[in-house]
Amino acid sequence: MAKYCFGVDIGGTTVKIGLFNDKEELVESYEIVTRKEEGGSKILTDIVESISAKMEEKKIAKKDIIGIGLGVPGPVCADGTVLKCVNLGWGVFNVAEEVRNLSGIENVKVGNDANVAALGEMWKGGGVGHSNMVMMTLGTGVGGGIIINGHILSGSKGAAGEIGHLTVNNKEEDTCGCGKRGCLEQFASATGIVKEANRLLLKSDKPSKLRDIQYLSAKAIFDAAKEGDDLANDLVEQLGSYLGLACSHIAAVVDPEAFVIGGGVSKAGTILTDLVKKYYEQNVMFALKGKEFKLATLGNDAGMYGCARMVLEK
Amino acid sequence: MAKYCFGVDIGGTTVKIGLFNDKEELVESYEIVTRKEEGGSKILTDIVESISAKMEEKKIAKKDIIGIGLGVPGPVCADGTVLKCVNLGWGVFNVAEEVRNLSGIENVKVGNDANVAALGEMWKGGGVGHSNMVMMTLGTGVGGGIIINGHILSGSKGAAGEIGHLTVNNKEEDTCGCGKRGCLEQFASATGIVKEANRLLLKSDKPSKLRDIQYLSAKAIFDAAKEGDDLANDLVEQLGSYLGLACSHIAAVVDPEAFVIGGGVSKAGTILTDLVKKYYEQNVMFALKGKEFKLATLGNDAGMYGCARMVLEK
Repeated sequence: MAKYCFGVDIGGTTVKIGLFNDKEELVESYEIVTRKEEGGSKILTDIVESISAKMEEKKIAKKDIIGIGLGVPGPVCADGTVLKCVNLGWGVFNVAEEVRNLSGIENVKVGNDANVAALGEMWKGGGVGHSNMVMMTLGTGVGGGIIINGHILSGSKGAAGEIGHLTVNNKEEDTCGCGKRGCLEQFASATGIVKEANRLLLKSDKPSKLRDIQYLSAKAIFDAAKEGDDLANDLVEQLGSYLGLACSHIAAVVDPEAFVIGGGVSKAGTILTDLVKKYYEQNVMFALKGKEFKLATLGNDAGMYGCARMVLEK
Repeated sequence: MAKYCFGVDIGGTTVKIGLFNDKEELVESYEIVTRKEEGGSKILTDIVESISAKMEEKKIAKKDIIGIGLGVPGPVCADGTVLKCVNLGWGVFNVAEEVRNLSGIENVKVGNDANVAALGEMWKGGGVGHSNMVMMTLGTGVGGGIIINGHILSGSKGAAGEIGHLTVNNKEEDTCGCGKRGCLEQFASATGIVKEANRLLLKSDKPSKLRDIQYLSAKAIFDAAKEGDDLANDLVEQLGSYLGLACSHIAAVVDPEAFVIGGGVSKAGTILTDLVKKYYEQNVMFALKGKEFKLATLGNDAGMYGCARMVLEK
């Protein structure tokens, strides 16, 4: 009899749910709305009801469910306790225990969203073949996940892989959302890239096609750089230098085999990974040279895959 | 019948050997000379002969030896292969296999010297009570060891914890021994501290008792700072800022519970840990605040302890 598991990636707007079989294949995926009212108290009930309905539809008995893996947007301790998920309205409680009680399924694992995305990319995405790897997600913010010997590194308080808050520029005067200054996220998130572009456009006299764009985006900047726009090129070089420096810090700590870069900004393609690699090599000692820099391939499904992997892994 | 193990820390001048019992107690320790002639080919034979003699002396049978743990000054892969130990004259070979063959003892483990020192401090030193911790050794160079869930993090090529080569100042023009610029080791090793002092003494007009010392040392600088010397104080603040920044990078990657600082420079005492903590707190996001900063307590024995722990750990 085939066995199954669920990978459940809880986002601020929707919950992505994937049904996987024990051959490590995705059978089906779908989304439900994240109901954030009443302190997010309905989110887990909605998920468990949806899973039950799916099991009924597919005629899967409870005994054939290997487990449920969940990804949440916030720090998570090893036992499944979340320390606050601002985007969901959640305070401190044990998510794993709650889902165990609601579902009657014993094997429930919970991970941070950036960490499960890293695990997903290792398992089925850009990181395949690398059991020691680091994923950087460049989106609205900058997230990270560290995979050691095929498993997520959570850290003592669930804050391992918070690489968006590595200090990369101690001259920066603006404050990051985290309260300190000079964080990678201030320069390498989609919003950070645009902010830096607007700064440089004001400061520089260089002609640039970016000056004709009313609402700048990271994509527009990369497109202009690819077309040879000088100022856009300065911007992507600066971005590469911050990311390369951050990767050099990470490597000196955990010495991974590969870095996988995902998130909306990574749609720029290999121009981005090539740049990061260039500045990485300038910032590492000989023993750390020659790592691989790859693009993520699972997009928004990475978290869902990683959640399933958490309950399938040995 | 009691069981025993050996912890063997191989340095460039001497090999420290400790005999431990299965109650996790050090029974006896002694040193032998590191014979580096002929590409260091005699080192392991000397060690195994010395261990055999000690077993005979103590009337310990081979079957009562739990294992032998060895620390070596260079990167080590998970299987015990060293990738070059310049200080011993060694090239690439499997140290664990060689010691197994020479001794007839099956359980042989090999770790990098900075990593085994970290494990030793976790087990019996400044890091007791913390299974997720980072050790920084500030000596002639700057070394590091990362402990995750009670075990050494080696990294994919044995270079995890190479924190002496974290870039902390990208304006530095001198080149580090590793070939790049701005490494922590250039500022926070015993030699780096003195070099920075000489730089500042030339650049500054401030009166300072350091000007009267012919051969400056890290100790003299800390002593002067404790006595209120203004220029010495600037120097230790700068040292603290580099170390605090480096610790902030490490924390954003692995989120440890504590940092343990050892090596000759750490003899300065809590003035050092207080300074590092001060600058650490300025450089980390809220989720990473409040880590402990402690002094190492095992001195040069840390590696020997950690070597024993490698074969005793579950």
